[in-house]
Amino acid sequence: MSDHREFRDLASPADLRETVAALDLGGETERVALRDARGRVLAERIDAALDVPGFDRAAMDGYAVRAEDTVGAGEADPVALAVAGAVHPGEEPDCTVTPGTAVEISTGAVLPPNADAVVMVEDTSETGNGVAVRTAVAPGEHVMTAGADVAAGQRALGPGTRLTPREVGLLSALGVESVPVVAPPVVGIVSTGEELVRPGADLHPEAGQIHDVNSYAIGTAVEAAGGEPSYYPHVGDDEAALESCLVDAAEECDLVLSSGSTSAGAIDVVHRVIERRGDLLLHGVAVKPGKPTLVGRIGGAAYVGLPGYPVSALTIFRRFVAPAVRDAAGLPDARTASVTAEMAVRERFGEGRHRLVPVGLVDDGEGTLLAYSVDKGSGATTTLVDADGVVDVGPDTDYRSPGEDVSVALFSPDVRPPRALVVGEDDPVLSRVLDDIERPRFLARGSRGGARWLRDGIADVAVVAGPGTLEGDTTELGRWHREWGLVVPAGNPDDVRGPLDLVNEDRRFANRDGESGLRASFDALLGTLSEEREEGNESLAASIEGYEVETHASESPARRVAAGAADAGLGLRATATRLDLGFVSLGTETVRVLANPCRTGKPAVSALGQQIEDIEGVTDEVPGYVASPE
Amino acid sequence: MSDHREFRDLASPADLRETVAALDLGGETERVALRDARGRVLAERIDAALDVPGFDRAAMDGYAVRAEDTVGAGEADPVALAVAGAVHPGEEPDCTVTPGTAVEISTGAVLPPNADAVVMVEDTSETGNGVAVRTAVAPGEHVMTAGADVAAGQRALGPGTRLTPREVGLLSALGVESVPVVAPPVVGIVSTGEELVRPGADLHPEAGQIHDVNSYAIGTAVEAAGGEPSYYPHVGDDEAALESCLVDAAEECDLVLSSGSTSAGAIDVVHRVIERRGDLLLHGVAVKPGKPTLVGRIGGAAYVGLPGYPVSALTIFRRFVAPAVRDAAGLPDARTASVTAEMAVRERFGEGRHRLVPVGLVDDGEGTLLAYSVDKGSGATTTLVDADGVVDVGPDTDYRSPGEDVSVALFSPDVRPPRALVVGEDDPVLSRVLDDIERPRFLARGSRGGARWLRDGIADVAVVAGPGTLEGDTTELGRWHREWGLVVPAGNPDDVRGPLDLVNEDRRFANRDGESGLRASFDALLGTLSEEREEGNESLAASIEGYEVETHASESPARRVAAGAADAGLGLRATATRLDLGFVSLGTETVRVLANPCRTGKPAVSALGQQIEDIEGVTDEVPGYVASPE
Repeated sequence: MSDHREFRDLASPADLRETVAALDLGGETERVALRDARGRVLAERIDAALDVPGFDRAAMDGYAVRAEDTVGAGEADPVALAVAGAVHPGEEPDCTVTPGTAVEISTGAVLPPNADAVVMVEDTSETGNGVAVRTAVAPGEHVMTAGADVAAGQRALGPGTRLTPREVGLLSALGVESVPVVAPPVVGIVSTGEELVRPGADLHPEAGQIHDVNSYAIGTAVEAAGGEPSYYPHVGDDEAALESCLVDAAEECDLVLSSGSTSAGAIDVVHRVIERRGDLLLHGVAVKPGKPTLVGRIGGAAYVGLPGYPVSALTIFRRFVAPAVRDAAGLPDARTASVTAEMAVRERFGEGRHRLVPVGLVDDGEGTLLAYSVDKGSGATTTLVDADGVVDVGPDTDYRSPGEDVSVALFSPDVRPPRALVVGEDDPVLSRVLDDIERPRFLARGSRGGARWLRDGIADVAVVAGPGTLEGDTTELGRWHREWGLVVPAGNPDDVRGPLDLVNEDRRFANRDGESGLRASFDALLGTLSEEREEGNESLAASIEGYEVETHASESPARRVAAGAADAGLGLRATATRLDLGFVSLGTETVRVLANPCRTGKPAVSALGQQIEDIEGVTDEVPGYVASPE
Repeated sequence: MSDHREFRDLASPADLRETVAALDLGGETERVALRDARGRVLAERIDAALDVPGFDRAAMDGYAVRAEDTVGAGEADPVALAVAGAVHPGEEPDCTVTPGTAVEISTGAVLPPNADAVVMVEDTSETGNGVAVRTAVAPGEHVMTAGADVAAGQRALGPGTRLTPREVGLLSALGVESVPVVAPPVVGIVSTGEELVRPGADLHPEAGQIHDVNSYAIGTAVEAAGGEPSYYPHVGDDEAALESCLVDAAEECDLVLSSGSTSAGAIDVVHRVIERRGDLLLHGVAVKPGKPTLVGRIGGAAYVGLPGYPVSALTIFRRFVAPAVRDAAGLPDARTASVTAEMAVRERFGEGRHRLVPVGLVDDGEGTLLAYSVDKGSGATTTLVDADGVVDVGPDTDYRSPGEDVSVALFSPDVRPPRALVVGEDDPVLSRVLDDIERPRFLARGSRGGARWLRDGIADVAVVAGPGTLEGDTTELGRWHREWGLVVPAGNPDDVRGPLDLVNEDRRFANRDGESGLRASFDALLGTLSEEREEGNESLAASIEGYEVETHASESPARRVAAGAADAGLGLRATATRLDLGFVSLGTETVRVLANPCRTGKPAVSALGQQIEDIEGVTDEVPGYVASPE
């Protein structure tokens, strides 16, 4: 059965959900100590094995009495009783209450024999040889009788109860030291792909290696769903090795999850292994992302093959697999946490399949949530943290218009939109300022990106550097100034003095992308130089080797220089200093922090403005930065 | 400074909150492995240390090309390119793309030198000696350039970020193996009281011992707030021992919590220790429960003394202390989870102090939540699990009327009202039936209690046993029958044959309380016997020693017999069999399960009805029970 044939007949999302729900994911019972039982789920009913309290117990400080001895007592007519002794908590009474006597008693102490009530100390007075009782009490008054809280044999907690501090309290009262709880389903995590390297291990990007994102991300999601992740070593695309890994995992786990095989060939391998060593129940789902999802069984374990890209793998896990893990762990369904938001701008999705589109959220300052796409495509991992939830888009929907209401399924009920959405130029001073703001989201989209997101009414704040003006109303929260130029190897071995030294000199240059303010400053300088040389700007740029190499962040060109991949890079003095590189200053540019005027009332936006008022404290610490130009 | 003087000048709840919030509870930094970082909070900003991807990466399966070589290509005019090799994920390219050539490439593989775009395999055809490209591609098409996802030096995650699977994914991509996170504040848990015994240890109720409820309940609540509990051995009221324990705990912890000293004397001891070894900041709060709350410092640690009763201790901890622990742990404020409910019946509170009243909730079947008091008073631990939240009642409010709206602060956002509120007779068959219902709440209030709660419109379902009829409309969900009588020691050594053997025979009897159906059956039998003997019912009862001993559950009298504290007890054949005791049958009574007719549409109520339709499966397993009388 070929991969391509399978994919022509895609299962529906509902089929996927049902197929996963029908898998057997364990649900064994284990015992845990009560003190470690928080969040666990009782596997069995617990009946009280003893009375609570275990004895008739004084509920007040005062005197244990025979109620009949207090009949008629009042403020005006106190009854005098002899005091036969005292009993305190944790003591066995060594006295009894005979007619006409009382025993001093503390809250929590055992009611002595023959006593049937307690008179509060406030209603008594000590006398020379006893106590005067100034109120009558009924039998049982201020006494908690044995078993009145819970009696032995009573149902205390039912199976399926999730243990919070309150249940732990009741079980403590019952003397329970350990409890039978639902064992978490053990979920084997297998990442496939020759290119994967576990975080922390050496990475060789030149050999196409990337860090394995799915293992810990999916494993952490398994934990969040009440399962216990078990990590297996990576396997490549070798069929025998993969088969052996999956079969081993199936023996040790209730569920095996694999992911990472983004290429069709690797999926074919997994597909064949499952068909040979288990049952293939479903392959290919009409949902994007998620098309290559596989469901089956290997040996005694359930198996789900997730897509390879992290956002896809986590989306499919969360939507379709996590509910089954929760169910096996005895946890209630996750609270559905959805919010309604308005599309900020028109988004095209393309028709044909049900889409799960990750979106970010921002409050427009008047209580309306706006949804915006954050996906940089092709397995971008920043989408993981820049998005707040997922919008379902049906197969017949081609696009969503600005202002259209969409329902956003939050990644979890804990997700809250950022307090401030800041978009624009990446900048080391900005990074420090953002550290002191509660829950900002910063999207590094360059100065031009920031300006666009502000103009489109999505960003609360844009950060723009270099030349260029912004259309429309903005409120400047503040500004600072940074020295820019060419970052060169330490000691400037080629004796580069400016852009002209890059022209026709066989120097390899590393540039920034066209969205960045640094690039705009550089291009403006090239324009001036061209005029001086009476040449077209383009020909000057075209004469710089590497001018078209566009890198994505303020440190990227400098890092190329540090790595020996370039002889000069566009960058900041701050970066050159930080990376111990040489620096050729070409000027100072202004970094402006501009707010949408309708959003200045948002607390995090005004907090940002306040931080910038004291920007000198930060700029003084970063080389090449000043709060105000001299 | 005497305790009594302090208490006259009680702090306000707002003072308590502010005083606790001003304490220093730690907030150190520690490193944890990324795979164990779920739920932790970043202590520092994390900038990307490398580019993701680390190389220009194919985003599709196909052919790596020089975009300029595809200019003009189309379905009708394919461009023919020679294939110079292939590159797969995790491989270093061993070929370059020269003009007129292409290199086969898999998704995720390194773009070979000189290539600047990828043509999707779908847009190509293999030819005898190369590949026909049927579409033109632009430079960068289907390529993710190095650093396009995250570039080295960019801000990745800010301090204060809570790590979910998504952040763990991004950090994995960045190769981060361990992360600096906020260390949980260490909270020492000290329980004081001579009477306390840790769960699992031997309990001597005759000496007034009770299990320590607060340690694990508060410790678990500390965990839920992001703290790390550290348990200390109990101390009694001995001042030197308590002082030494508190001082030790203060050296090892950020915050020390004590509780358990319910008596005024013990509080005085703690008070003196804090004054001597630290600072007493606040003592006595105008809130009920919580009056004896103490706040201060011992050595370098913060100190809070909680009230002794578990419900009180947990209420004060949750309301006033947990927010400070969360803050020190770097967690966001707990989501306020409040629901509006109607008071089910009139509740008197008494004026004078702000009250935090625990209430249970139930849906009235039409979407309105009803709130009801569940407190059995005087430190009852069942209140912990029978309540769903707390109603704040101001000092000037004496009572709340039925139908009045109240705001209920749920114990946590996870709390959901029970799906079925069942009140009435405790019964072993009922217990088993409830095990198969999702999230029921059963309150053992006896048959009379059940009838009352049903009549008052609180209970969904009442369980009533024995004689007596219910006023008003009810819907019977089902019934079963149980054999009742006298439980006696094994072998019935006294040869008891019936109630008359208990009269004037010097036998010690153990009775049930007046709310129970068993008691009603017994009293009815005594009435019949009295008539036969032509005596008043009361005199017959009065002649039974222990008739007035009221115990609280179906097994309680039998357990008194088993313990040698009674010679005969009112009970069930099921209990006698279970406890290996003798049994003298006195009859069979019917257990009826009656629903509020407005609540039969609640899924859990109808599920209960369905379970009872098959009650034979349960009654067959319990001695003395039948589904239908013969």
